[in-house]
This record gives sequence, structure tokens and C-alpha cells, in this order.
Amino acid sequence: MSDEVKCDKPVCDKFVAVNELARRRGFYWNSYEIYGGAGGFVTYGPLGTRLKQNIENKLRELFVKQTGVMEMESSVITPGKVFEASGHVDHFKEPMVECVKCNKRFRADHLLEEYANISSVQAEKMTLDEVQAALETNNITCPDCGGGFRPPQQFLTMFETTIGPYSGATGYGRPEAAQGIFVEFNRLYSAAREKLPFGVIQIGRALRNEISPRQGLLRLREFTICDLEFFFDPEEPCCHLLKEVEHETLPIVLCEKRERCCEDITIFTVREALDKKIVRSEWQAFFMAMAKRLLTEIGVPAEKQRFIEKLPWEKAHYATQSFDQEVYLERYGWTEVSGHAFRTDFDLGCHMKACGADMRVFKEYPNPVETERLVVKPNLAKLGPVFKKETGKVGELLSKADPEVVEVALKKDGFYVVEGYKVFSEHVQIVSQKVVERGKRFIPYVVEPSFGSDRLFYVALEYAYGIKDDRVVMSFSRSIVPVQVGVYPLMSKDGLAEKAQEVQRQLVQAGFMVEYDEAGSIGRRYARADEAGIQLGITIDYESLKEDTVTIRDRDSWCQVRSQIKTLPELLQKYFQRKINFEDLGT
Amino acid sequence: MSDEVKCDKPVCDKFVAVNELARRRGFYWNSYEIYGGAGGFVTYGPLGTRLKQNIENKLRELFVKQTGVMEMESSVITPGKVFEASGHVDHFKEPMVECVKCNKRFRADHLLEEYANISSVQAEKMTLDEVQAALETNNITCPDCGGGFRPPQQFLTMFETTIGPYSGATGYGRPEAAQGIFVEFNRLYSAAREKLPFGVIQIGRALRNEISPRQGLLRLREFTICDLEFFFDPEEPCCHLLKEVEHETLPIVLCEKRERCCEDITIFTVREALDKKIVRSEWQAFFMAMAKRLLTEIGVPAEKQRFIEKLPWEKAHYATQSFDQEVYLERYGWTEVSGHAFRTDFDLGCHMKACGADMRVFKEYPNPVETERLVVKPNLAKLGPVFKKETGKVGELLSKADPEVVEVALKKDGFYVVEGYKVFSEHVQIVSQKVVERGKRFIPYVVEPSFGSDRLFYVALEYAYGIKDDRVVMSFSRSIVPVQVGVYPLMSKDGLAEKAQEVQRQLVQAGFMVEYDEAGSIGRRYARADEAGIQLGITIDYESLKEDTVTIRDRDSWCQVRSQIKTLPELLQKYFQRKINFEDLGT
Repeated sequence: MSDEVKCDKPVCDKFVAVNELARRRGFYWNSYEIYGGAGGFVTYGPLGTRLKQNIENKLRELFVKQTGVMEMESSVITPGKVFEASGHVDHFKEPMVECVKCNKRFRADHLLEEYANISSVQAEKMTLDEVQAALETNNITCPDCGGGFRPPQQFLTMFETTIGPYSGATGYGRPEAAQGIFVEFNRLYSAAREKLPFGVIQIGRALRNEISPRQGLLRLREFTICDLEFFFDPEEPCCHLLKEVEHETLPIVLCEKRERCCEDITIFTVREALDKKIVRSEWQAFFMAMAKRLLTEIGVPAEKQRFIEKLPWEKAHYATQSFDQEVYLERYGWTEVSGHAFRTDFDLGCHMKACGADMRVFKEYPNPVETERLVVKPNLAKLGPVFKKETGKVGELLSKADPEVVEVALKKDGFYVVEGYKVFSEHVQIVSQKVVERGKRFIPYVVEPSFGSDRLFYVALEYAYGIKDDRVVMSFSRSIVPVQVGVYPLMSKDGLAEKAQEVQRQLVQAGFMVEYDEAGSIGRRYARADEAGIQLGITIDYESLKEDTVTIRDRDSWCQVRSQIKTLPELLQKYFQRKINFEDLGT
Repeated sequence: MSDEVKCDKPVCDKFVAVNELARRRGFYWNSYEIYGGAGGFVTYGPLGTRLKQNIENKLRELFVKQTGVMEMESSVITPGKVFEASGHVDHFKEPMVECVKCNKRFRADHLLEEYANISSVQAEKMTLDEVQAALETNNITCPDCGGGFRPPQQFLTMFETTIGPYSGATGYGRPEAAQGIFVEFNRLYSAAREKLPFGVIQIGRALRNEISPRQGLLRLREFTICDLEFFFDPEEPCCHLLKEVEHETLPIVLCEKRERCCEDITIFTVREALDKKIVRSEWQAFFMAMAKRLLTEIGVPAEKQRFIEKLPWEKAHYATQSFDQEVYLERYGWTEVSGHAFRTDFDLGCHMKACGADMRVFKEYPNPVETERLVVKPNLAKLGPVFKKETGKVGELLSKADPEVVEVALKKDGFYVVEGYKVFSEHVQIVSQKVVERGKRFIPYVVEPSFGSDRLFYVALEYAYGIKDDRVVMSFSRSIVPVQVGVYPLMSKDGLAEKAQEVQRQLVQAGFMVEYDEAGSIGRRYARADEAGIQLGITIDYESLKEDTVTIRDRDSWCQVRSQIKTLPELLQKYFQRKINFEDLGT
């Protein structure tokens, strides 16, 4: 963890301060408190829900509206077969140990990290035997009662359930939204009018049954994931949108440095990263640049963002090249907010193999190609006397068989078996034949940017958090601020409240997120608004009644300008679209 | 089911036609087809996801923006205790039978409906013994193999799982979003600045492990629910927004008619329904009127909507008065799209009892009230010799005890037991005392409108579906249309495509949902767009290059007008806000 990076506004522990504020003002809190709580589940309150939606909508704006990616929605509960095929049932596991005395269970890698200073990166490489050895060597015992541990075992971190009334029908809560996209590839390809490249995003709930969740919003059992799968032809890997981001810089910590335990950041432009083959896919580089833009919009300055190239043993089982986008957090240091995996044809290939459906796409050659190909020709005259009524079927099976496999079998064993029918050399001919091929079928390649919505949310909170004159001010970025405008009558008498409600209605009608507040002194109301991060405060005073004007107050500078009521909708629209600044709102 | 109600555009079976179109154009389809499908799960494709989001956002607009209800988000996976307290573990069950021969399982009430003409309303009233008797009397056997059935049993229709690594920690997939609101009442009340009335909505996934799901989108195992819980003081039940809807009409099928098997609709204004005590809560009537508005916005005319008052045995275990909002569907007749339950203090009361947390709110009296009250006075001098060191504790327990309960116990048994301590008459005095009360604590009452997002979605599809000149035209309501504008170059040469892409970019920038299409003849593109329900088609032709104008085509009338490119964003904005009509878009 790098020590040079420091936050501008030091608080004792920002994580604690942010969480305290979040709970108090209803951004989010730990769920089910009245029942003693349930680790790994959070509830978003009114302000939090709106902030989270704004972040997700910003993501939609960048990827769906601007990049043209399609959105879809599938189910959280997923039939077991899907995650067997995808490799999750085999790989989505964590090493767990159980205390022999108190039977409490712990994540072994967390114990190693905490009590033996073995990093998660190192622990990930270990086998169960090595984990056990490391626990013993370091004399690690149960943190609760000091007891020893039973041998470590792998714990499947998917939630398991049964679909329908039959006990055999296992279902899992999806740990990612990606598989929901892959299994529907054929329909999505058709929705994309059978043209590559195209992308599909799914923003939805995902579940991971963590052994011991911790770190608040950073490691939840239920969370919102935004998985974007971008499909392209590996023979045409160019990104036609690259020119829009090619001068954007990507701060990367390279594998070669990380292997030497060095965390130095190298800065490449998107173009350089591709030319130097640091990033292998143009689309992957494009999405990394877009991810940086997203985080900037959420309020994280460029120098608090970086990408780390994943080491071979850190990568998920499906990825050939992976980068994690990280943001610097005060308590936890560099923390992953998005993953960028080059999944190639792994997932579609797995599902094809598991279910037999053809998930390849057809690519027409510019000109049809004439090739010579071996084919199996069944000799029906010889097959007839042996297979009688079934001759037709056997013939058909043989003509579909792989000629090389048949040839090898006949040479090696003297016979070949297809679906239980045994045939001999005399029954078939392997001949070379001319075929005209109009095109070919192939499995598209995939790059995947994947964002954790709850982490983006936490990052937005931490980077908005600041102290001014001993008061908390949540300086949310203008594009995600949960409440855009607060409307306050100076007093609740003399018709000021009615006038203020009129302004509020006008702004709600114009589509703004508005809050009305008439309780307490105007100073207290401003303070309350700053804590909730309300961007602008509109105050209706006695002059408003005479001149039809209001004051507008800026949350961050506390400056005020005066403006005509009738111009507010248009001015505010321009302001929130960042076309004008606060000073342009009035005099 | 009423036969008088007919759809304007008859198709052989609209349900089939709508589903076929939905699958083909990527609105939605049955999930996991490549693995043989999984009943009760659907996937929303690109067009469907957008339509569903637009419907949910329309709901937000009506309830969150305009009515001021707060939104929240909590987890799908819920600790078992929550649904034990809420009564779901006891009540959320369906009668199931299993075939003795093939072991297949069926919902008993569905079998009775299908093979014995016993309506679901009647079946809901039956005990398991009565179900068994009805199956036998009607000679109902396994529809698959003809075998007999084992005795019916109750099947819990919640998905069950385990939270974390311990087998005892049962969790359920929530079958509704409401409990997520109730358990967080104290925090939400604080976010509402401790003032009644206030409402909280949660729009999110819910799970019901149906025994045999059917009817496409109408009965899913995983679906999106929109539960709105509105909390108010039962002593101040007036709805301050009532005047906005009081003249709105509510078409209601009353209980008294339904009991006589009559389905006649009586039309009341909101005001009348309240005055005649047809609807018992003003807030409930308000939300019923809003629900009618929502369905109208989604495209369902008033005469295809009705509310039915639920019969005593049809109501959920938590409701005292319930109405279902129904929409007429071609295949299924009147179909529920929202429920309106008067839940009183049932849910908060259940959780208070189960977890011991105080979920009452404090209400100050206008003036403090001096009352006489019985209190228990422990006699410490007499307690001391008996309870020694524990005297203090026993004294405290006694002074907190209910005076009437203590009095009755002493009279009846001669003693009273508190937490294991046995006391006699000499140890306490029951005296009347003057107390000044500043206010009182009470549990708020709740009315709940609850919408099924997937049903609203299906209704929107069916009501949009129409045939014009033998072609499908999806006439979505302007406020929820998934794609607002299609942009088409007349030809893809001579700079027309570039000009069209410029127009597209301009409209995307202005915030519209736009699709660009240059493939095939303009006629084919219009046909494709009509099927996807694209509201307006903007065509760039040779005149566009000279005059900077375009034609705009209306999806429903197929009329065209000509308009200046530079005025498009403003004109279209007004058009989609329903401020102007199609004719006003150009000449």
C-alpha cells in the first residue's frame, strides 16, 4: 500500500466518520438491526437509494446511451447446471477452518493475513495443505477461544437453494450477472441483428455467501453488480470508438513490477498501452478509459485512480488478461472498484460444451472458398443386410461422424462404434471431396468491464465527505447528487411558505429532485442540507414576494446569488448539465 | 369472468401473439432455454428492459416525485427470524399433492380448478382434509400417469437457503419487499424527521417458489415487486392530498355482490367511496386513485380497469380490508395488477413482539394531561429479608409490572411471579397515583399499495399490441415507450448516413432514447420500427442536405410532417411531455 497518497481533508478515521454520517442521515446502514443484525447485508435509506440510482444511471449514460451497449435483466436464482458449466461450482470457493473447541468458522486466508502477515495475493496461491501448514507454522489458533483448527476445507461461497418442490433441483444465487448474459447469447445476438461487435450490460443483484463479511459496503453478501460483456470477432478486434479515448491516460501498475513487490504506477495513453501491448485488446483499453471517466464523474480525481495488472494466480478462472481498477481509500488503501477481464471465448465455449447448443456466429467470406475435405461415405449396400430397418439411421450417423476419428478407429481397432452400432471397414469409405464454403462459424471473444455498484457508492460518499467550519459538507459531484435543490421559506409565515411551495412544485414539474424544508432557523436548514449534500439552496424571502426573485446558495462555497423565479428551470437545467457555473445563476 | 368486455383488435389468441413477438423482438423470453428452460424465470431483452424501467420510473414519478414518498433498497436474502415474526413461515404455503406412482407434485388447488371446476376463491377456504376429500370425490388423479395421490401437504413457497457457513442460519428469499421496510421502520421514521404521515416504497426483486409456475409473466418464481408502505396516525387519518383525486372514479366490485357470485361493477368517486365507507381509509382511496392513473399512463383505458373488494378468506393474513386492482386481459380475463391492503399496525406489532424493539412513535398532547393511574409500589422493607442482595432488582421488576396483572394474580393465586421471583401481597401495594403525561406512544397504521412490475409490463405489451395492414404495430403510450426516436438515412450513400448520425448524436445528447437504422429499404425499416414500438421516425433525405430539414413519421397514424433539424430537441421534448401533439411537430 502506497503511503505517498494522502487525502485532502484528514479525519481521524474517515471510514468511521462516513459510516456514522451515512447511518444518521439515512444513506445506508446495516440491515436487520432490530434482530441483532445480519452480517453482509445493508439497507439503503432514501438519500442512499437516490445516490445509488444516480450512479447506476451515470453508468447507463456512459455505456448504454453513449456507447450503444444493450441492457438486459435476468434472474438472481439460477439453475445449478449454469454454474456447473461456467466453472463456478468448482472454483467459487474459499478456504475455511473450524475451531475444534468452539466450532466457530473462519476464512483461513483472512487469518493468515491478520496473524501471519501473509498477503491475500500469496494466500490465493496456496493449496489447502499449504494453508494448514502455514496456520501451524505461525501458531494461529481460534481468535475467539484459542482452540486449534480442524484441517481446512473449501467452502462454496454461492447461496444454494432448491427450485420448485423437488429436492434434486439445485439452484444458486448468482455471484455475478455475466452468466445470465452468456446463456442468452443467441437471443441477444439476434436482438443485435446478428452483427458483431455488440455489448450487453446487466445491472442487478448478486449474492456471495461470504464466510465472514466485513468492511461495510466493500464486502457484502448481497450487492449490486454491473457486468458488461462485449462480444467481438477476434479477427476484427479494432474498436471503432477508440479515437474518442486514445489520448486518455491510464495509470497502470504492471505485472512485472508487482512481481518484484513494487507498486509504481506507469502512465500510458490508451494508444501507448495498446502499441506497447500492455493492454492486449482495443476494446478492453476503451472500457478501461471509460471506467476512469466514470470514476471521475463520481468524484474521484485521476491521481486517486489506478489499474493493476493481475498476476497469473490472481485472475479468475475464466480470464486470460485482467486489470483491476482501484481507488485510494483512506482506511483500506487502494481498493478495487471495477474489474476488466479478457474472457476470450471461455464462457460461451463452456456453455456450448455443457448444453450442446450451437453458440457460434456465422461469418461470410468475401468470396466463397472451395476446399478439399475428407468425408465419411456410408456403403448402404453393405450396411443393409446387417442393420435392416435401421440402415438409414446408421448411414446418417456415419456421414455426420468425424472422418479422422473413424479412420483412426478402423485402423487401430478394425471397427468403429457409433451410438452402439458397430461398423467395419467394408461399411464406409473415407474420401476426399470438394466443398464450397460460404463462410465459417466461430465463437466471439469477450472483454468484460465489471463494476460493483455498492463500492462505487462508498467511494462517492468518501470522496464527497469534507469538513468546513467544523461541519460536515457532502460535496457530491453535480452529476450524481441525490438532492439537487432545497427550497426554504425564510419564515413560515406571511405567505413565504406558500410562495416557496409554489417554487418547489415548479421545479418538481421541471424534473428536478427537490426537497422542501421550513423547520428551524435558516442556518440550521443550510447545515442540514450541507450534510445531505443538497447542491443548491433556494431561499424565499420578503423580496421574493415583491420582486419574484430568490437567493440561490452554493453548498460548497456558501456563496449566494439572486435570480428571477421564472428563469430557474432553464438556468438550473444548464447548471446540472455543467453548461454554466454557479456564478452564472444570478447576480 | 365477464364476457362483455372485448378487445378492439381481435387476434386469434393475443397472449400467444404477444409472447411470440416479445420473444422474437427481444422484449422477454423464458430464461435458460439452452439448458431446457427453468419454469418461472424470464429474461428481459434490450427493448423489454427499457420498457420495464420506464414503467418503474413512471411509478417513481407518481409516488416518489409527486407524492413525496421516500424510496429505499434492502436485501432479497432475509434472515429467517424476520419471516417467522411476520407470519410468512406459517402462512406462505400452498396445498401440494404427490402422485403415488410417478412421484410428480402438483398444486392441489390448481387441480381442483382445472378438473373439478372449483374456483381458486373456493379452494383457498379449504382445509387440507377438505382438499383431499374434494380430490377423491371428483376422482382426480395424476394428470401425467393417472396414479392416485398421497395426502395433500402444505408446501412453503419461499426459497430457503443458509446464510454464512453455519447450517442453522436459515435465510429466505423475500416473497415481498414490505418486510424490508417494516424492520427498518425506526431508521426510516428518523429519515422522515419523526413526522407522520410518511410513505416508503421499495422496488426490487422478490421470490416465490411456486410449485408449478405458469401463465408466462403473470406467475413467476422471480419477479419485481413495488411495495409502498404508508404510515399514518390512526387518530389523524386524513389525507391532505385527497382533493387532487376526489373526483376520480373508482370502478369497484363489492364484497356483497361477490358473495352472491355477481361481478357487477359499481362506480364511485373517491369522495363517495369514502363517504359511503366502501373504502375505509382516505390514504387507501388516494392510492387506489393513483394506481388507476398509473395504469392509464401505461395504456389501459379506464373501462378495462376495476377494483375488487377481497372476501374475508381471500385476504392476506395481515390485512383488514383489501382491494385488488384488476385489468382485463384477453386470455385470462380480469387479472390482478396491484393489491391495496389496509395492514393497520399488524406488521410493526409483530416485529415489536418478536424482537422486543420499541417501534412506537411518540405523540405529544397539545397540553400535558394529568391522569390517575394504578402503579405497583414494591415494599422494600418486606422484600429485603427475603431477596437479600437481589431486593433492588426485584423491586425494579415489580414497579415495571402491569398493576392489573399483579392485582389479579394476588387475588387469584395469592402470589405473583416475575422472572422466577415469587412475591406475596405483603411485598407490594397497588396504589392510585397522579401522573402528568406529555404525550403517548402508539404504533402507526399502514396502508399498502403493491404493484407487480412484470404484470404491469405484460399489460403494457398486450394493450400496445395491434395490427395495421397485416403488420404488428406496438402502440406504446408516449410516456413509457422504450425507444422514442428512430433515425434513418433514406440511403446510406451521398452523405445521408453521416447527416443522419449527426442528428442521432444531437438527440442522444439531448437525452432521448434513439435508435439508428440504415439497413434495408425505408419501408422495411419503418415496419421494423413499428414492431418495436418506436414512437417517431426521423428520415434524412436529399432535401435534408439542402434545407436542414427532416421528415418525422408517426408510428400509429403513419402520417408525416417536415421539420427543421435545429428545432428537433425542443419540439420533441414538448411532444414527449405531452405538451404538443404530433401535428405540432412540423408542416
